Amino acid sequence: MKDVRIVVDVMGGDEEPQVVLDGISAALAADPALTVLAAGPQDIVVPFCDSTDRAEALIAPDVITMEDDPIQAVMTKRKSSIVIGCRAVKKGNADGFFSAGSTGAVTAAGTAYVTPFRYVTAEGERRPIRPCITSTLPNRSGGLTVFCDMGANPDVDPDDMVRFAQMGAAYASCVLGIKNPRIGLMSNGTEDTKGSHFTKECFPLMRQQVKGFAGNCEGSDMVSGNVDVVVTDGFAGNVALKATEGAAKFIMSELKGALMGSLKGKIAAVLLKDELKAIKAKLSGDAKGGAILLGLRGVVLIGHGATSVEAVKNGTLAAAEAVRADLVQNVADSMEGIL
Amino acid sequence: MKDVRIVVDVMGGDEEPQVVLDGISAALAADPALTVLAAGPQDIVVPFCDSTDRAEALIAPDVITMEDDPIQAVMTKRKSSIVIGCRAVKKGNADGFFSAGSTGAVTAAGTAYVTPFRYVTAEGERRPIRPCITSTLPNRSGGLTVFCDMGANPDVDPDDMVRFAQMGAAYASCVLGIKNPRIGLMSNGTEDTKGSHFTKECFPLMRQQVKGFAGNCEGSDMVSGNVDVVVTDGFAGNVALKATEGAAKFIMSELKGALMGSLKGKIAAVLLKDELKAIKAKLSGDAKGGAILLGLRGVVLIGHGATSVEAVKNGTLAAAEAVRADLVQNVADSMEGIL
Repeated sequence: MKDVRIVVDVMGGDEEPQVVLDGISAALAADPALTVLAAGPQDIVVPFCDSTDRAEALIAPDVITMEDDPIQAVMTKRKSSIVIGCRAVKKGNADGFFSAGSTGAVTAAGTAYVTPFRYVTAEGERRPIRPCITSTLPNRSGGLTVFCDMGANPDVDPDDMVRFAQMGAAYASCVLGIKNPRIGLMSNGTEDTKGSHFTKECFPLMRQQVKGFAGNCEGSDMVSGNVDVVVTDGFAGNVALKATEGAAKFIMSELKGALMGSLKGKIAAVLLKDELKAIKAKLSGDAKGGAILLGLRGVVLIGHGATSVEAVKNGTLAAAEAVRADLVQNVADSMEGIL
Repeated sequence: MKDVRIVVDVMGGDEEPQVVLDGISAALAADPALTVLAAGPQDIVVPFCDSTDRAEALIAPDVITMEDDPIQAVMTKRKSSIVIGCRAVKKGNADGFFSAGSTGAVTAAGTAYVTPFRYVTAEGERRPIRPCITSTLPNRSGGLTVFCDMGANPDVDPDDMVRFAQMGAAYASCVLGIKNPRIGLMSNGTEDTKGSHFTKECFPLMRQQVKGFAGNCEGSDMVSGNVDVVVTDGFAGNVALKATEGAAKFIMSELKGALMGSLKGKIAAVLLKDELKAIKAKLSGDAKGGAILLGLRGVVLIGHGATSVEAVKNGTLAAAEAVRADLVQNVADSMEGIL
């Protein structure tokens, strides 16, 4: 296995830094060709790296919180783990970056330091791509559905949406091996006439420029399998993703209540133990660990703010895997003629 | 029980008109003080009404489809079931209207014919309220969360959002009996700094004008119980609602697969039969039947396009119940000083 160096943001996520450190240890144990650069304040990362093989300290005294204005924070907190992590990727000191910190700040720092690919506009101008958070959800056809943007850009223009669709399609073909992915534009109905002013502006551009464009789709198509890629802006995308997670949590808690409420329920719970665990794992962000910031010239993975040891482990391993699979270059290659 | 007359749109929903007719029969059987005006083409509604007690035919030769442009359709198809249904409510020939047809068309016809309340702007001007689709979802605290707008208005301005919040709050206190409802603005994170340009414009207005405003909330808060009312525009609202429904369907189908995949699963399925049915019913739109178009001077209920006999029955009964509870006037009364 190829040696890979991944920076991990020790200050990322809503949990104590110790959760991230434990996640790093777990990732290192699982991947013997992995080196982790732990980015965070000296008193946290140095003792950890001193006592851990293949862990190097990247001192980052500043901390960007979830409350900070992302762009402002990236500009002023130049010694934060998020900025230092992205700069390490840019300088070639690391192959990839994983953070469960502020999505907005990671996007801003990734854009500023790892830098986006450029595409050619209709007018022949070269413009930087706006990166979008991309990942997959399991669907009812037994496959995976690519979903972007999951929350990097609350406000975009129709041209950005076309790029998201093209990147999502490239991801579906490179990562999932889907030959002719069907691309859906998230809307408030599947009919061509449905949509907001904004999606109605996107629709004709998608039809012209996106290969495999299948028209409008709905929130339920994130997991239906009717399309291979669901494209939306980062606001609706984040709302839809959290709604999906919320619904999953609700049902699992109702189910738990039903199982624990009676003797026969308790017996069923014992019988179903492994199956319920498997369903829970399938839906949990922990299993995947992170979503990639597609459009950047390097691997930047963003984890869920509500993180865990398992999530950090899997996010770090997913970043290493993306590096080994040459994901960034492969996606760029399959966008030939666009970039 | 008070006698109530409800118009039901026989051409509403994605199913055959027969599904709606069967739903009407079921509603009539369940409520002996109910009369239904079945609105639809003569050859469908007349034979049905001839053979059904307490069913009157409202001839509506035009049909508005899901593909039609809503406003255009309401203006040109004046003899559609949706327009004729709303006009019957306006003229006092019926007490309420239920349709599982085009959400946009029902909203447009309701606005044109049933007419909205007016509110007083900051400048002292009286402006019509934009109606919003409002309903409830079960939450993890064991209660119900009010959700609006579920899809009537894909594009709104911040002032509309303030009105949605105030109507949602009035609904929570009148219908659910919540004394001081907590109102959340749906966003891409709970922090005050999160949001799109649009929600960031709404935020300060909400803080000034909405009693009980609890700041930003997320997609997961539709079912978390952290707030009593979730307010959003009709685009994000529809996407979030369908995402929730999609996730629920996905999990129930995974669970079914797990149960049917092994002998012990099949035993568990037998043990859990009633509990699983109860969870499914709790999440199904069928159980509730419809969502109210709040802001209008009459009862207009909108059902899910993917309808069923059970959904039409419950939607019709819910419309009758809203009339008997004087829901419209009670919500208006509790908005004293705003309307």
